[in-house]
Amino acid sequence: MEWMDGGSITTPEGFLAAGVACGIKASGRKDLALIVSELPCVAAATFTTNKVKAAHIVVCRENLRPQKATVRAIVVNSGNANCCTGKQGVEDARQMCEWTARELSAQRHLNIQPHEVLVASTGVIGVPLPMDKVKQGITMAVAHLSRQGGKEAAEAIMTTDTKPKFAAVRLELFGKVMHIGGIAKGAGMIAPNMATMLCFIGTDACIGRKALQSALRYAVERSFNSITVDGDTSTNDTVVLMANWMAGGSEIAEDSDAFLRFREALTALCQRLAKMIAADGEGATKLVEICVTGAESERDAKAVALTVANSLLVKTALFGNDPNWGRIAAAVGRAPARVKSETLAIRLGEFECFRRGEPVTFDEVAAHEWLKASREITLHIDLGIGAASWTVWTCDLSTEYVRFNAEYTT
Amino acid sequence: MEWMDGGSITTPEGFLAAGVACGIKASGRKDLALIVSELPCVAAATFTTNKVKAAHIVVCRENLRPQKATVRAIVVNSGNANCCTGKQGVEDARQMCEWTARELSAQRHLNIQPHEVLVASTGVIGVPLPMDKVKQGITMAVAHLSRQGGKEAAEAIMTTDTKPKFAAVRLELFGKVMHIGGIAKGAGMIAPNMATMLCFIGTDACIGRKALQSALRYAVERSFNSITVDGDTSTNDTVVLMANWMAGGSEIAEDSDAFLRFREALTALCQRLAKMIAADGEGATKLVEICVTGAESERDAKAVALTVANSLLVKTALFGNDPNWGRIAAAVGRAPARVKSETLAIRLGEFECFRRGEPVTFDEVAAHEWLKASREITLHIDLGIGAASWTVWTCDLSTEYVRFNAEYTT
Repeated sequence: MEWMDGGSITTPEGFLAAGVACGIKASGRKDLALIVSELPCVAAATFTTNKVKAAHIVVCRENLRPQKATVRAIVVNSGNANCCTGKQGVEDARQMCEWTARELSAQRHLNIQPHEVLVASTGVIGVPLPMDKVKQGITMAVAHLSRQGGKEAAEAIMTTDTKPKFAAVRLELFGKVMHIGGIAKGAGMIAPNMATMLCFIGTDACIGRKALQSALRYAVERSFNSITVDGDTSTNDTVVLMANWMAGGSEIAEDSDAFLRFREALTALCQRLAKMIAADGEGATKLVEICVTGAESERDAKAVALTVANSLLVKTALFGNDPNWGRIAAAVGRAPARVKSETLAIRLGEFECFRRGEPVTFDEVAAHEWLKASREITLHIDLGIGAASWTVWTCDLSTEYVRFNAEYTT
Repeated sequence: MEWMDGGSITTPEGFLAAGVACGIKASGRKDLALIVSELPCVAAATFTTNKVKAAHIVVCRENLRPQKATVRAIVVNSGNANCCTGKQGVEDARQMCEWTARELSAQRHLNIQPHEVLVASTGVIGVPLPMDKVKQGITMAVAHLSRQGGKEAAEAIMTTDTKPKFAAVRLELFGKVMHIGGIAKGAGMIAPNMATMLCFIGTDACIGRKALQSALRYAVERSFNSITVDGDTSTNDTVVLMANWMAGGSEIAEDSDAFLRFREALTALCQRLAKMIAADGEGATKLVEICVTGAESERDAKAVALTVANSLLVKTALFGNDPNWGRIAAAVGRAPARVKSETLAIRLGEFECFRRGEPVTFDEVAAHEWLKASREITLHIDLGIGAASWTVWTCDLSTEYVRFNAEYTT
């Protein structure tokens, strides 16, 4: 497996993309992205577990039903989440698929049905989509589709992200070169909007629907489901993975060696995109990796890591470059997991602070200087109970985060 | 039931208190409190559910064993949590009880055993207690004990609280006047310290240990367990209730009418103190009451209320006076409770925003003005599923909170 410099969703064979500005964002920035595969794809997806779901999720679920089989395109708008918009919202999402299919058929002579188009939205909640603008955007995006359009599309799905997020890998299986490439957007808002995590991934590998879904679940669990910015789960979170088989070669059968290698590459890609999201959290000054070891189960390890990652007291201490390990101990103690103070050990980078229930003397000034100098830091938490581990990525919590999210804009 | 103007822990008959400065806090502020009852008390207590617990909790648990029967005093220091301090910490907490018993016996000719003294600490985690200072403080506090000392004691348990918290009620049962009075401290830190919630309550009512514990559990569930500042559970949270029977009259038997009236008064007292804590959260500009109705169970209603109360996006919007109800809907949707978008209704004060899955048009400018003008606001969330309800109190999240908790001081 090898990273492709500057790679994105359009790195795998047969994928085209575009990102255009159609006026949904008042700022005039790009706000509509389109991804199209030249050949039909099998697709897999994961969606938010939030019980309040955006309209696009209803429509994606319909269009991903097995009997509808293939997917050809994804249309995404930013600047409006199309969530809590009632029945009209679902109709609007369906309309986006129809317009996209119609334009692709008209402009590109691709015979695409509306149910072969997936749709996603991100932005403000509770406001109806400006459908006239969306319609113009779709027409423009179809006209702009290109093999170089991946980064543009990554820009067009941004809300408060400070930079676009894209990456791609290549790997060889069965003597054939194949690629996995993706774009993502992070937890951000265009005030007063809801944070959303979106990711769209394409691959030219030959892999069936069931294996694809299994690989995606595994990868998402260890990447997007292991990052947090502020603990607020979005109503719109969506990850879609499309495979168009253009690399040729044998089919990657589930649980084969080739499958494990494909899954590993997919997981690495998702982790890279996920870490970009955490590092670009609103107002973040640091990417924080939280490694929990010695847990009774992976579930326990993840619960501890996420509780520490979402602790306001831990996050504000890190923003202040304060090696305040007591706050970490307190967060570990309230995690829904098996934890014992007597076996607990805590390390900030190389600074050991706590071991088996007793404080360890360390150079606090040096630890402060190390925190101050580091854009990426690791917290090690050993529960000293079992053999399971998990890693989670987050960012610090700054005054800028609060200022940003408190801004009045309605 | 009637509120006693300026009442505190020393309002009930027979309770003395003192608050002194013994140098644990670098600021020179009061940092040691002592509460003593002239007669032996039955006592009840609740402690943090955090698995990392302060040393004083181990010692309180020992001293509250039924066979040890009565309690006479509580000694509390602020400025140091005596938590994550290993075996030495537990010995130090025990030592505090011994010194207190000895000084009370010596100076006041009260025959008090060490196991009749309870102990609590709040402040920085992981730093050993400065026992020489604590010893001096205990000697001073015993000398200063008085029937007017309740407010002083409330000051001495403060960390980053901006004001002391005290209240008392009187009620008549069996033709006798009795009182319940308490002091509390809130989620605050002396940087770089851990937040802690402490509350000490006294009553002159005649009530047995079991009934007292039952009344306290009920009251704490609906007050201190229903407030949140930042979702970070402390390692030191402690509520102690002591009854010295000095009011006379019949014993308040569990589940009697008198018991229900006593429990109601206790709950009101705890709620008043709890709301003072939420309103005085670090950097808070607003007290926020979150009323969830229409839930399938009280457990569900509480889960939804707490999830909304701990949402950074909701809390920062409130700080910004932004009527951003979409963030509330999103928080409701991720609560571990039965929730359906189609039956959900949301109201900000008098402004209805969302009803049965459809957005409701409201005057956003007027809502912003109302938020701006209000120090106390109420969010109404109706789940539209069942008949259960719960209320939780919290505060907004300000830039000041982050600044305060990021301050580097080690």
